Amino acid sequence: MSKGVKIVTIGGGSSYTPELVEGFIKRYDELPVRELWLVDIEAGKEKLEIVGNLAKRMVAKAGLPIEVHLTLDRREALKGADFVTTQFRVGLLEARAKDEKIPLKYNVIGQETNGPGGLFKGLRTIPVILEICKDIEELCPEAWLVNFTNPAGMVTESILRYSNIKKVVGLCNVPIGMRMGIAKSLNVEPERVQVNFAGLNHMVYGLDTFVDGVSVQEQVIEAMANPDNALTMKNISGLSWEPDFIRGLGVIPCGYHRYYYKTDEMLQEEVEKAETEGTRAEVVQRLEKELFELYKDETLDIKPPQLEKRGGAYYSDAACSLINSIYNDKRDIQPVNTRNNGAIASIPEDSAVEVNCVITKDGPKPISVGDLPVAVRGLVQQIKSFERVAAEAAVTGDYNTALLAMTINPLVPSDKIAKQILDEMLEAHKEHLPQFFTKIEA
Amino acid sequence: MSKGVKIVTIGGGSSYTPELVEGFIKRYDELPVRELWLVDIEAGKEKLEIVGNLAKRMVAKAGLPIEVHLTLDRREALKGADFVTTQFRVGLLEARAKDEKIPLKYNVIGQETNGPGGLFKGLRTIPVILEICKDIEELCPEAWLVNFTNPAGMVTESILRYSNIKKVVGLCNVPIGMRMGIAKSLNVEPERVQVNFAGLNHMVYGLDTFVDGVSVQEQVIEAMANPDNALTMKNISGLSWEPDFIRGLGVIPCGYHRYYYKTDEMLQEEVEKAETEGTRAEVVQRLEKELFELYKDETLDIKPPQLEKRGGAYYSDAACSLINSIYNDKRDIQPVNTRNNGAIASIPEDSAVEVNCVITKDGPKPISVGDLPVAVRGLVQQIKSFERVAAEAAVTGDYNTALLAMTINPLVPSDKIAKQILDEMLEAHKEHLPQFFTKIEA
Amino acid sequence: MSKGVKIVTIGGGSSYTPELVEGFIKRYDELPVRELWLVDIEAGKEKLEIVGNLAKRMVAKAGLPIEVHLTLDRREALKGADFVTTQFRVGLLEARAKDEKIPLKYNVIGQETNGPGGLFKGLRTIPVILEICKDIEELCPEAWLVNFTNPAGMVTESILRYSNIKKVVGLCNVPIGMRMGIAKSLNVEPERVQVNFAGLNHMVYGLDTFVDGVSVQEQVIEAMANPDNALTMKNISGLSWEPDFIRGLGVIPCGYHRYYYKTDEMLQEEVEKAETEGTRAEVVQRLEKELFELYKDETLDIKPPQLEKRGGAYYSDAACSLINSIYNDKRDIQPVNTRNNGAIASIPEDSAVEVNCVITKDGPKPISVGDLPVAVRGLVQQIKSFERVAAEAAVTGDYNTALLAMTINPLVPSDKIAKQILDEMLEAHKEHLPQFFTKIEA
Amino acid sequence: MSKGVKIVTIGGGSSYTPELVEGFIKRYDELPVRELWLVDIEAGKEKLEIVGNLAKRMVAKAGLPIEVHLTLDRREALKGADFVTTQFRVGLLEARAKDEKIPLKYNVIGQETNGPGGLFKGLRTIPVILEICKDIEELCPEAWLVNFTNPAGMVTESILRYSNIKKVVGLCNVPIGMRMGIAKSLNVEPERVQVNFAGLNHMVYGLDTFVDGVSVQEQVIEAMANPDNALTMKNISGLSWEPDFIRGLGVIPCGYHRYYYKTDEMLQEEVEKAETEGTRAEVVQRLEKELFELYKDETLDIKPPQLEKRGGAYYSDAACSLINSIYNDKRDIQPVNTRNNGAIASIPEDSAVEVNCVITKDGPKPISVGDLPVAVRGLVQQIKSFERVAAEAAVTGDYNTALLAMTINPLVPSDKIAKQILDEMLEAHKEHLPQFFTKIEA
Ligand SMILES: [Mn+2]
Ligand SMILES: [Mn+2]
Ligand SMILES: [Mn+2]
Ligand SMILES: [Mn+2]
Repeated sequence: MSKGVKIVTIGGGSSYTPELVEGFIKRYDELPVRELWLVDIEAGKEKLEIVGNLAKRMVAKAGLPIEVHLTLDRREALKGADFVTTQFRVGLLEARAKDEKIPLKYNVIGQETNGPGGLFKGLRTIPVILEICKDIEELCPEAWLVNFTNPAGMVTESILRYSNIKKVVGLCNVPIGMRMGIAKSLNVEPERVQVNFAGLNHMVYGLDTFVDGVSVQEQVIEAMANPDNALTMKNISGLSWEPDFIRGLGVIPCGYHRYYYKTDEMLQEEVEKAETEGTRAEVVQRLEKELFELYKDETLDIKPPQLEKRGGAYYSDAACSLINSIYNDKRDIQPVNTRNNGAIASIPEDSAVEVNCVITKDGPKPISVGDLPVAVRGLVQQIKSFERVAAEAAVTGDYNTALLAMTINPLVPSDKIAKQILDEMLEAHKEHLPQFFTKIEA
Repeated sequence: MSKGVKIVTIGGGSSYTPELVEGFIKRYDELPVRELWLVDIEAGKEKLEIVGNLAKRMVAKAGLPIEVHLTLDRREALKGADFVTTQFRVGLLEARAKDEKIPLKYNVIGQETNGPGGLFKGLRTIPVILEICKDIEELCPEAWLVNFTNPAGMVTESILRYSNIKKVVGLCNVPIGMRMGIAKSLNVEPERVQVNFAGLNHMVYGLDTFVDGVSVQEQVIEAMANPDNALTMKNISGLSWEPDFIRGLGVIPCGYHRYYYKTDEMLQEEVEKAETEGTRAEVVQRLEKELFELYKDETLDIKPPQLEKRGGAYYSDAACSLINSIYNDKRDIQPVNTRNNGAIASIPEDSAVEVNCVITKDGPKPISVGDLPVAVRGLVQQIKSFERVAAEAAVTGDYNTALLAMTINPLVPSDKIAKQILDEMLEAHKEHLPQFFTKIEA
Repeated sequence: MSKGVKIVTIGGGSSYTPELVEGFIKRYDELPVRELWLVDIEAGKEKLEIVGNLAKRMVAKAGLPIEVHLTLDRREALKGADFVTTQFRVGLLEARAKDEKIPLKYNVIGQETNGPGGLFKGLRTIPVILEICKDIEELCPEAWLVNFTNPAGMVTESILRYSNIKKVVGLCNVPIGMRMGIAKSLNVEPERVQVNFAGLNHMVYGLDTFVDGVSVQEQVIEAMANPDNALTMKNISGLSWEPDFIRGLGVIPCGYHRYYYKTDEMLQEEVEKAETEGTRAEVVQRLEKELFELYKDETLDIKPPQLEKRGGAYYSDAACSLINSIYNDKRDIQPVNTRNNGAIASIPEDSAVEVNCVITKDGPKPISVGDLPVAVRGLVQQIKSFERVAAEAAVTGDYNTALLAMTINPLVPSDKIAKQILDEMLEAHKEHLPQFFTKIEA
Repeated sequence: MSKGVKIVTIGGGSSYTPELVEGFIKRYDELPVRELWLVDIEAGKEKLEIVGNLAKRMVAKAGLPIEVHLTLDRREALKGADFVTTQFRVGLLEARAKDEKIPLKYNVIGQETNGPGGLFKGLRTIPVILEICKDIEELCPEAWLVNFTNPAGMVTESILRYSNIKKVVGLCNVPIGMRMGIAKSLNVEPERVQVNFAGLNHMVYGLDTFVDGVSVQEQVIEAMANPDNALTMKNISGLSWEPDFIRGLGVIPCGYHRYYYKTDEMLQEEVEKAETEGTRAEVVQRLEKELFELYKDETLDIKPPQLEKRGGAYYSDAACSLINSIYNDKRDIQPVNTRNNGAIASIPEDSAVEVNCVITKDGPKPISVGDLPVAVRGLVQQIKSFERVAAEAAVTGDYNTALLAMTINPLVPSDKIAKQILDEMLEAHKEHLPQFFTKIEA
């Protein structure tokens, strides 16, 4: 790697890209990126050019010798890559809007990661990511694949189970957001706060929390129980927790846990929002439109501050920190999605989990947590069951398996409704689900 | 035991008792019961006498030297017992009615075993059963405790975890009912049918099914998928399964699984029934009243055929077969609730499971199943989490723990609703929950 | 199977064959064997004919319509088989003699199953058995493979790990011999004795012992501790146990455990015997010679009583019982070698263990034992490590892996001596180890 | 801890103490030790004063405000301690000499940690350490116990299993010595070398090795296989490994593994040494005598360089680094003995293992390794079985359990010899084994 680092970003036309570029610029001394390839598909060409040109201006302003390449040729880009990041969306935000809206018709939350929407996002995404894995195997077998694409847990599980790629890490900004929120709520600097994260993607818990190494878990629990101080995330409702439930739980849920522990209220809120501001996808579509208008401004040569509203806070830090720690064998601790390897007792060794890891050049090494508290094992295992059955459906295109995944999802209240939602969504996403339709027609 | 077997039945005034008596009479040659002690509490004295006198007439008619003792003195009865069976109901059917009706007010299924109603049945029952365990330890330490009292899974878990009694078996008629239903649906004699049962109480699956040792699982799945032929149980709705869901599942759910895989439809049905015929408790109250009228008839000296409507079909066979196999070291295979001991991989070794066991004089020895199919591990683990947290709440009387149990129950849609139901039920069952109220008042 | 059962015995020229034939004759009513194919190789043709003709005379005397076929064409024989039994010896007793004698030169016990001799028996046998598995897959995919060939644990492990055959059971007469010995030592009929067997082949322990279902383990331990009453087996030295060691152990070792818990004394005895009566192989060679002389007698039409001296006592019972229970779905309990499936906690799920199983038409279902006592886990795991590394060496022909297997064997005192023994034995068995020599020459 | 750190060293009169003192002086800026209490027993009073005065001179020379206290009153010393280190020897080197010499009479290696000698060291030490644990519980419940006392694995296991102390770490200089040796053999600076350590104390393996994060395991294996370059330790023979064995093994054994993989040659060497220079205890006795002569020199105010010959190289670094990382929540990676917690799959969760951990103020957090390679699981599990049975014998004083521990030790060739060694050693160490003799006499 003496010639510097080559990074390939698949879905490079994403509105998040300036975050990444900023992160690489900030870390250039340690992480000398020589080439940054932004890859997208024909349908994303315009956005790629807008955001790619902004990236070039940002690099130029920083005065760094990072070459920014824009391309629609994924295989060309991958050759000899050191790191491949993925942040694409099969079917774009239009598909996400369907993922959210169709379930709502049946009074079911869409939830684009671990819910019915997440199932369909997985069905569309997993075959594509497995194709990318084959390309990596051939064109840059030494590269690390850093996946931000949701549903990141299901995608990581699929790569571990159905590809030959071992060098993969799934990444999410939920844990870093929790840590930042906790620091703010305790009024201490974030660097002094450590959280023992364990669980699954978007289903991660803070098992214990430390300031300067001393447990402050009880204080954090009380902060969570206080409706005026509850730790929240931009893109998830701030509905307050029942204080005694949080005290009984004893561990810190993430924002997404509201979908499972407050299903009813979340559903009501989503229904209301859908009728007023639109679903999250629609809100994001508007935000993105505004962002791309900003990006077009040829005088803009920094990441615009408006990007932080988009919900991807800390993604840059999380992703660039991870790449930096792998590249430099930093052996610091970061929560990522990786093979469990026994770190969480009640999850199979060969499944993906989201857990604190020591980040080395040889990849993330999970820190053993023994087991999750009894009270949360069930829900965690239920999402893991869902992820695995969904991944199998994505790979096989088997209708019954997809229906099974939909039915066992904790947001879905019955097999009959599962079938109705499934059938409508299959039809709506038909063009992105060849594994189901080619077979049916054949 | 040369002097013959001493059996003590706690809750002996139950309407099920004639089933048991019939079972002992039929098996007398192998299982020579010398003393049958029917124990009840003051409030059940009248029923105890009615059913006890019927038991005496049945024994007399059979011409067997079985002494039937009726008593309110539990400790007197337990002395030197060989088997203790428990089939009592703290708070009687009135309490069950509350377990079912209060949740319904909040649009939540009560479900008297693994649902919110089951939580309260557990909170009332577990302290009493642990007292019985202490008596057994002192007065008949060699006895086997055969528990029919629901929630049988949670009760067995509590005994394993919080008492010193090791010789305990939890028993349910759901597996034998499934086997009978399968036999009928395949039109073969039940003795030729074997089912690999595994899971938890009221959450048990048929992993594979055999006729004369040859797997017929696919046929059974197709029978389940056929709405005209779905295998049902008397006391659970016969709502039909979505055929492709059952095909995707690949294993045979029990009747109670409808509460979890068809929550929505079951809720609607329960609401309707509550408004027309009343909740199940109310139906059973009427049935029981009729039964006791029959039992009073001094010319009746057999088990009246009407008893079978009561929902306890095969209880006699299940219970007497179990006792017989223990007593005679039969080493046949029966599905019971026992310590997992590694038989199901994703459940802790020291937790109760419902699984096929070889029944020996040294107790049930579970047959290893490896692991449950991925798709069902989540729900099973979730009920296990619920059972364990509920058992902890029952023992500690801790409010937050009880709220945690209520919230993680898959039938309960949010922490806020959980708290509302919990608070109303705590108040309604106050007199039977001293562990909560003594503490609060102290 | 309406046309009756077809049994194929590979290594049919073995001196044990009359045991098997007698067993089938005795069980004919339940297990209607229609065809018995005795298969052997060119080098065993003479023995095959001698023993095959005896088999025919035995069947004729019994007046049963069992066709006995003698053939050197294994593939012809396998077609449509219901059961395939294997009892062959690659390299015949000459090879065993080398397995025993070469290690002795280095002051190391040969031990033809779990020792250095067993390693070489495995290296010779495993490739052949894997070939047979391929034939079975093609020619009789529904057949059960019942393997008696030693080292039966390593062979079963290899089949589970390196073939596509799932319907395999490994069989040994050690457990039945222990049960018989215990019965004799307690002076009760064998049918009343049950032993909880668990461990590995030739490394199996009696975890508990029952007469009529009541534990008599302490009595059995005292019997083992009594040098005048120690339970022994014909083909293993009766060196007495240190009484307090056996009391501390608390479980019943098998005869082969003497090699590991009394290595020193066993070595001395083997050295002495080798110098006087010869190694066990040489003794057996003489016994076999005498047996075949008897078998030639055309008036002989029963199993000659002298066969029992051969060391295979109860093999017939064990093997025919097993086949009978599979064929008739008897669901009785027998100790066999099968996939662990979680029955013994500290052994991987997918490894072979020897453990009590319920024998069904769908194969053996192991009964969970939780875990072995702490004190024996180490030795058991060490033999399992040895079996697995040896199996890998047999399949890969890798020299370093073979040396690793030899060195980690508990009978081998150093890596240097391991290499010396390995090199001499590789050379001595060259003709039967093509996987090592073809590669080296290539 | 604003008042500075209080450290209590039990066995403070040890010749190693100057190492520790030097370590604390070097790290004073980060780890402000205010009080260092050196505790010893009456029999060690003279040594305590000699080494204690040297410690005071070292501190004075460094110009640091560290108070050095010398005392025979352990309970007085423990009050309010932050860290307690233990490095004592029940029975002093005289006892070690017996541990080594008595087994040799029976042609068995004594091996003072995981061999017969280690069993007796454990039997003498464990009751004392459990008394210390009770004192800690009462007098400084927040303190961390850092145990250097051998057999460190067995001692850590005992504390985890038989005391209420959770804040314990077992420490050994073997891993750091391996890392240093590897660095030297690769000719790179030690800071660039990272080794994935996993196993048990004195039975630890390097599963993989990295320079700057890149695996160099193959090079290290080749270095081990090269007799001129084999990685060795001062206090263990440098007998060379069989190259192809090391290649087959694929992981890096520690020096103590020679006792198990080269038992025979190690025994010969020990016999020779015993006859020439004396056993290791006798050599150390001479070394210690010389060291204490040096320590007496009132002009000496630094750690004398001769100490490094003593075999405790890097102890200071290991111990002070560990304390420093706990105190400052450094979250760096160090190999220590701690509760497994699932980090090594085939060892029970609640057993002690030696494994890389992240060192935090909340203690060591083990990094998951999945499982050990198949080939080494057996030996590791055998030593774990030995440690656990030995610990049980130490706590119960049960003769049969002690004999069981002795017999299952891989260095002991038979139950008969085990009994002979056990009986002679019990007699020889009688005064330090009240748990055995009080009971026998009572
Ligand atoms: Mn995320
Ligand atoms: Mn039931
Ligand atoms: Mn055998
Ligand atoms: Mn050490």
